[in-house]
Amino acid sequence: MFSLLNKRIESTQNALVKHWKKLVTTRKERDQTKEFVVEGFHLVEEALKQPDSVIQLLVREDIEIPAHWTTPIIELTAAVAKEISETEQTQGVFAYCRQPQYEEADQHQWKKVLLIDAVQDPGNIGTMIRTADAAGLDAVILGKGCADPFNPKTVRSAQGSHFHIPVVREELTVWIDRLKTHQVPIIGTGLQQAVSLNELEAQPSFALLVGNEGSGVNGELLAQADHVVKIPLYGQAESLNVAVATGILLYTLRQP
Amino acid sequence: MFSLLNKRIESTQNALVKHWKKLVTTRKERDQTKEFVVEGFHLVEEALKQPDSVIQLLVREDIEIPAHWTTPIIELTAAVAKEISETEQTQGVFAYCRQPQYEEADQHQWKKVLLIDAVQDPGNIGTMIRTADAAGLDAVILGKGCADPFNPKTVRSAQGSHFHIPVVREELTVWIDRLKTHQVPIIGTGLQQAVSLNELEAQPSFALLVGNEGSGVNGELLAQADHVVKIPLYGQAESLNVAVATGILLYTLRQP
Repeated sequence: MFSLLNKRIESTQNALVKHWKKLVTTRKERDQTKEFVVEGFHLVEEALKQPDSVIQLLVREDIEIPAHWTTPIIELTAAVAKEISETEQTQGVFAYCRQPQYEEADQHQWKKVLLIDAVQDPGNIGTMIRTADAAGLDAVILGKGCADPFNPKTVRSAQGSHFHIPVVREELTVWIDRLKTHQVPIIGTGLQQAVSLNELEAQPSFALLVGNEGSGVNGELLAQADHVVKIPLYGQAESLNVAVATGILLYTLRQP
Repeated sequence: MFSLLNKRIESTQNALVKHWKKLVTTRKERDQTKEFVVEGFHLVEEALKQPDSVIQLLVREDIEIPAHWTTPIIELTAAVAKEISETEQTQGVFAYCRQPQYEEADQHQWKKVLLIDAVQDPGNIGTMIRTADAAGLDAVILGKGCADPFNPKTVRSAQGSHFHIPVVREELTVWIDRLKTHQVPIIGTGLQQAVSLNELEAQPSFALLVGNEGSGVNGELLAQADHVVKIPLYGQAESLNVAVATGILLYTLRQP
């Protein structure tokens, strides 16, 4: 069953274990090394669909793994698996991954994108990445003030979409300029001088710009949008969750 | 500043403090007493819009409160406030509330409702209540297997919508029968024999039936739906978050 194993780690003091634990717990380690760790069978399977992303699989010694996991595997003792796990009831399988990088030439081809300004909740960011994937977008761009897309909570909420759709961190002004040169309309979200969702039509290409949970999109960014749209509130709620609002808008903008 | 105070509690061993703590931490206490506690200025303000819901306000002794908080107030020491708080950085204000109850005669008037089957995550339930409120629905009905709508996480995610829209727990089969006698179409969500979101039209009345994060709507319930709808997945995501899917469907079904 472990014929593919080429290594076994027994000590929580092992340097690699310390690195993985830091990848799980600190943004600094993820940012510096451009690596991350995913946990559980579903996410490992999704990671393996992008083999270039996976550095190694990490498997607790008592876990039976599928025959198609042919990537180099490191066997872990229960203590080591527990050390790097983020969940209380771990499945004992992990993928140690590189954060995907994208060529600038490819980025110029992206014509349906989600621009996220300062969304702080990791779960919201993950759900938005998953939703953008479902809606068939080309990429998700995270501007200043966003939660780390490789935070374990974000990765869990995105359910594997990190391995399906490019997720890039960059200044949104750079992206707005670039998209405008390619005639991609920038659709901002806000309450002032906004057209209603009910007036919004599907578009062959678009950049949807959504913002912070409390304060919405930064005013200077919003001023660069070609259109501003708002979702009508028929009841007494003051606003929608930003991931829900993103889903409603993406499925309205997306052409069937 | 505390002229309205009629009581002060200094001991974490006080019987009321023990009761509030149990309301915050255990479903059993909430279910048995039909009470709950909300925390923070925003939720207290929303609670006060439904004065019948509020039994007492609880305010830490150093907190300055708005003049319009004229409901009976109990002053708490910092230790007591910390004891009943669910958050690390508490604002020190709470409302001790009754769970709203609704007359059956009123329930027969509800013609735009969200039926939720076995959604387990408290945050999802809260976000769905908030979304149903925003979409102007008449009520949210939670069937078997759902997270407690009065769980503090659910209440936080709903951002006060518990005080805007009725939230009722009851067998969904009872509701489906009742809605059918009132000619309200039941729109289920599922993958088999389903029409696409793109074919879905706004309806003057409807009951949207959504289900568990992993397994969707229970098959026996879904068989009672008049129509089954699915949201197309254009990318590689296998599904949408249930609260996002609910938002997309409610804003499609809801007539402008």
